[in-house]
Amino acid sequence: MASGWFYLSCLVLGSLGSMCILFTAFWMQFWCGGFAWDGSAYTFNWHPVLTVAGMVVFYGAGSLVYRLPQSWVGPKLPWKLLHAALHLMAFVLTVVGLVAVFKFHNHKGIANLYSLHSWLGITTVFLFACQWFLGFTIFLLPWASLWLRSLLKPIHVFFGAAILSLSIAAVISGINEKLFFSLKNATKPYSSLPSQAVFANSTGMLVVAFGLLVLYILLASSWKRPEPGILTDRQPLLHDGE
Amino acid sequence: MASGWFYLSCLVLGSLGSMCILFTAFWMQFWCGGFAWDGSAYTFNWHPVLTVAGMVVFYGAGSLVYRLPQSWVGPKLPWKLLHAALHLMAFVLTVVGLVAVFKFHNHKGIANLYSLHSWLGITTVFLFACQWFLGFTIFLLPWASLWLRSLLKPIHVFFGAAILSLSIAAVISGINEKLFFSLKNATKPYSSLPSQAVFANSTGMLVVAFGLLVLYILLASSWKRPEPGILTDRQPLLHDGE
Repeated sequence: MASGWFYLSCLVLGSLGSMCILFTAFWMQFWCGGFAWDGSAYTFNWHPVLTVAGMVVFYGAGSLVYRLPQSWVGPKLPWKLLHAALHLMAFVLTVVGLVAVFKFHNHKGIANLYSLHSWLGITTVFLFACQWFLGFTIFLLPWASLWLRSLLKPIHVFFGAAILSLSIAAVISGINEKLFFSLKNATKPYSSLPSQAVFANSTGMLVVAFGLLVLYILLASSWKRPEPGILTDRQPLLHDGE
Repeated sequence: MASGWFYLSCLVLGSLGSMCILFTAFWMQFWCGGFAWDGSAYTFNWHPVLTVAGMVVFYGAGSLVYRLPQSWVGPKLPWKLLHAALHLMAFVLTVVGLVAVFKFHNHKGIANLYSLHSWLGITTVFLFACQWFLGFTIFLLPWASLWLRSLLKPIHVFFGAAILSLSIAAVISGINEKLFFSLKNATKPYSSLPSQAVFANSTGMLVVAFGLLVLYILLASSWKRPEPGILTDRQPLLHDGE
């Protein structure tokens, strides 16, 4: 029964995550002119797609690796590698998404990093970089002591969830800002809720739903790898530090 | 030592929370013309102040009631009443903040609830209303069974933190949106980071810092009321359901 709920949640998560990326891409393709890499406004259009894919969907997927029942028993190392790899992919997508907006701004002579969206976004990416680097050095490389791992694990878990929350705030403010820009001189302004506005607002609410579901599974579900004290016979004693 | 850290955190939280409200009020007073209740733009100015005070600062304070060491022993009822009262105050402040923006929009003939900020904001307030009502009926009134309380407590705790995260996203997108409106025809636009923009962006980052600290104390600190299994001799057995 519990595993039925788990796989249903996976299905919902997969669908919601795919929809977040596809809807953002469709918004950029259908209403904002599509994609390019020449410094034009079409270069900017990679920014929402790649940051939603990186900071929300791949980040969320990477966060949930230890909630897979398959990861609860046996050696932890392969799952750590998957956790680190998915987050690295999330980070790379995000950085390319940042390059897109800087390239567009620099090409058009628009200032970088002035809006609160950009202040929060760049802070979140910086925290993510620190989190990944510390996670890699403390939990993946074999040098850190058990004591240090136990000390840092709750902080790593907390910042994992906090960074996702901040990403959601950055995405919401970004979609909001982009709609005010896109619909500034439109015949149907944002306040009259043209189809683009309804579609992009709904995409933002999908991102919120996806993020909340990830956070729920991460923080409140019982689908957690048992702590070392509760070992099965398939899990070698003290195989792993934390 | 632990209590030293706790009281230092309280001091930081109190200072940050006060600064969030005072900075928002100062922004509205100094750059946006101050406050009124006549449907003019000055009526709108209550909206940021009251929603930051309600959905972030009072909400955060109310969430942390059970982290006070004084609440860990003895009867839980007075602390439940304080928890409910602080959240009720947060809710009332928020609703008055919403009335302010609706009154301004209706007076000026501006559409309500079109931006993603408003969609997320109203969803968050709705979730908050459900959370307060369910908390009141399940955990404060004495009718619910122990089984139901145990079942719903993790969900109540999760949504408590989730609603604060969504509030932060709503506040960030709201400050961002307000700055684009305020500085639209200014001699120094938002992109040139005039003093108002730096001040309001910083206020937004203060709200993020306050929210993260509340979430850290709520989710990751060890300052938690012991579960019923771990009772002190000052805590009557089964005095309280959850």
